[in-house]
Amino acid sequence: MSDLPKSVEIREEGPREGFQIEPGPIPTERKAALVNALAATGLQQIQVCSFVSPKLVPGWADADAMMAMVTPPPGVSFTALWFNAQGLNRALAFRDRLKIYGSISFAASEAFQKKNLNRDRAGQIEAQRALAKAHQDAGVAVTRIGIQAAFGCNYMGDVPPELVVRAVQDAYDVAEEAGATITELMLADTMGWATPLRIERTLGAVRARWPDVAIGLHLHDTRGLGIANAMAGLRMGVAKFDTTVGGLGGCPFAGQPGAPGNICTEELALLCGEMGIETGIDLDALIEAGHLAEDIVGHKLPSELLRSGSLDAFRRKAA
Amino acid sequence: MSDLPKSVEIREEGPREGFQIEPGPIPTERKAALVNALAATGLQQIQVCSFVSPKLVPGWADADAMMAMVTPPPGVSFTALWFNAQGLNRALAFRDRLKIYGSISFAASEAFQKKNLNRDRAGQIEAQRALAKAHQDAGVAVTRIGIQAAFGCNYMGDVPPELVVRAVQDAYDVAEEAGATITELMLADTMGWATPLRIERTLGAVRARWPDVAIGLHLHDTRGLGIANAMAGLRMGVAKFDTTVGGLGGCPFAGQPGAPGNICTEELALLCGEMGIETGIDLDALIEAGHLAEDIVGHKLPSELLRSGSLDAFRRKAA
Repeated sequence: MSDLPKSVEIREEGPREGFQIEPGPIPTERKAALVNALAATGLQQIQVCSFVSPKLVPGWADADAMMAMVTPPPGVSFTALWFNAQGLNRALAFRDRLKIYGSISFAASEAFQKKNLNRDRAGQIEAQRALAKAHQDAGVAVTRIGIQAAFGCNYMGDVPPELVVRAVQDAYDVAEEAGATITELMLADTMGWATPLRIERTLGAVRARWPDVAIGLHLHDTRGLGIANAMAGLRMGVAKFDTTVGGLGGCPFAGQPGAPGNICTEELALLCGEMGIETGIDLDALIEAGHLAEDIVGHKLPSELLRSGSLDAFRRKAA
Repeated sequence: MSDLPKSVEIREEGPREGFQIEPGPIPTERKAALVNALAATGLQQIQVCSFVSPKLVPGWADADAMMAMVTPPPGVSFTALWFNAQGLNRALAFRDRLKIYGSISFAASEAFQKKNLNRDRAGQIEAQRALAKAHQDAGVAVTRIGIQAAFGCNYMGDVPPELVVRAVQDAYDVAEEAGATITELMLADTMGWATPLRIERTLGAVRARWPDVAIGLHLHDTRGLGIANAMAGLRMGVAKFDTTVGGLGGCPFAGQPGAPGNICTEELALLCGEMGIETGIDLDALIEAGHLAEDIVGHKLPSELLRSGSLDAFRRKAA
């Protein structure tokens, strides 16, 4: 177990993922209330909204209005999501309260990229070059690579590690051309195909080629294996994870209606905490934020831990 | 990964666990329909009912009537649960269709045993001696040891591996006195306290003392870590697991109302199948049985895989 990290950064994406997929409408103040509750749990980074087309994502038509209502407390970073220069410009209006960085994004499955973005490999390289330039023109450093469908794809089937390595190489090529220094590489199990063995094989292949970059995991719990995959990542020393409180969000991809989204923040925090891995998170406060999230969206979320409560509460009673 | 077993026996306990906890009433024919559906999925062993007091468990007042409606197909064993000589006698009436064996049961946490059964350690030793004798008097071999609360306890808190070893020793003492040959040792995470590290430490301590007995795991998904714990068991070569289809059942223990029960049969079958571990299970048939279970109990079950479907269905489409 010597590869388990001493501490892990769990990045909350519940507000952004959740409010984009819930049927709504949800009042802007309630969205801000969840962001503020999460910001008081010890989480270090929270993705609070999307600056995307209100036509495509009506749930975040009020992203600008919500941003005006929230301010990160000391030690907490707020981030947002965007896919083009317009979105970046909306984010830049809040640069006093947003951590803004550029990201280079590829799918390991070209079939997924075509379905999702209508771009082949060459088209995505062009698009990412343009986006990196837009960031740099705005004075924003490009520091992150994100790889979607890194463990399997509903349209392609299994995704061999070689295709992940190729996608990462494409991204590094774009970064190098732009003179960008990458500090972080996120591998996403976008459609829930990962298993612990696939995590090990794919991370192994990527690490063999880029031994120095910090690899993070963005895992979906589409088929109930998410936390086992996270554990496989922890065993390989992965120390950055994207998660959503309560399992907010869902799966927007074909053939999986009603399937769950990201792994639950509080369940990963429990797993880490119970194994002595530091997260900085107050688990009971996070569980309360999860109950608030359920209240806001008006239905139960997938998290099991929200039903049963932390173990420390039982330890206190037993003592 | 060399310790992963080549094949795993997944034992279904959904009918027994589920129908004892659902508010009901559920028609006996529907219970039998689920048993029959499960028996056609490739599962090798299914725990189909409880022979317990109808006052305590009204959901299984019709256990005898249901048994008269089901017959295991070739290669499939049906089992049942009972806690005393009366229950054993009811089971023996169906010995033509039930695999009947005796089990010696202890909780690693004496506090749990007191709350649950109102027996201290000495009282449980006495009770298990009497039960072993009742089995042997009826010509039934006692072959199994079951240890509850092996990874933690709502009433005691953390349960150190030494207490698990002590409980196993108590059980072996009862077995030896009765002249019984134990072939199987099940460790249960009754209240959802396990983590992968706790699985490793506790199994390690038990194996150090009894290197030859086959250890199985009965895991609850109370806090969302169940499948990660199962994976930890697989990594240690565990090849027997108790599960319930869809996650049927729940947690009857204080302080955790609404908490989920066992890990889902189909999610463990997916985990094994995708990693090349043989289970003999037809996953798509099992998912269909899970949908039938949801229809019978009239609400959604915790399983994520029931929402999203198997990966093979996507592979076939992609091919």
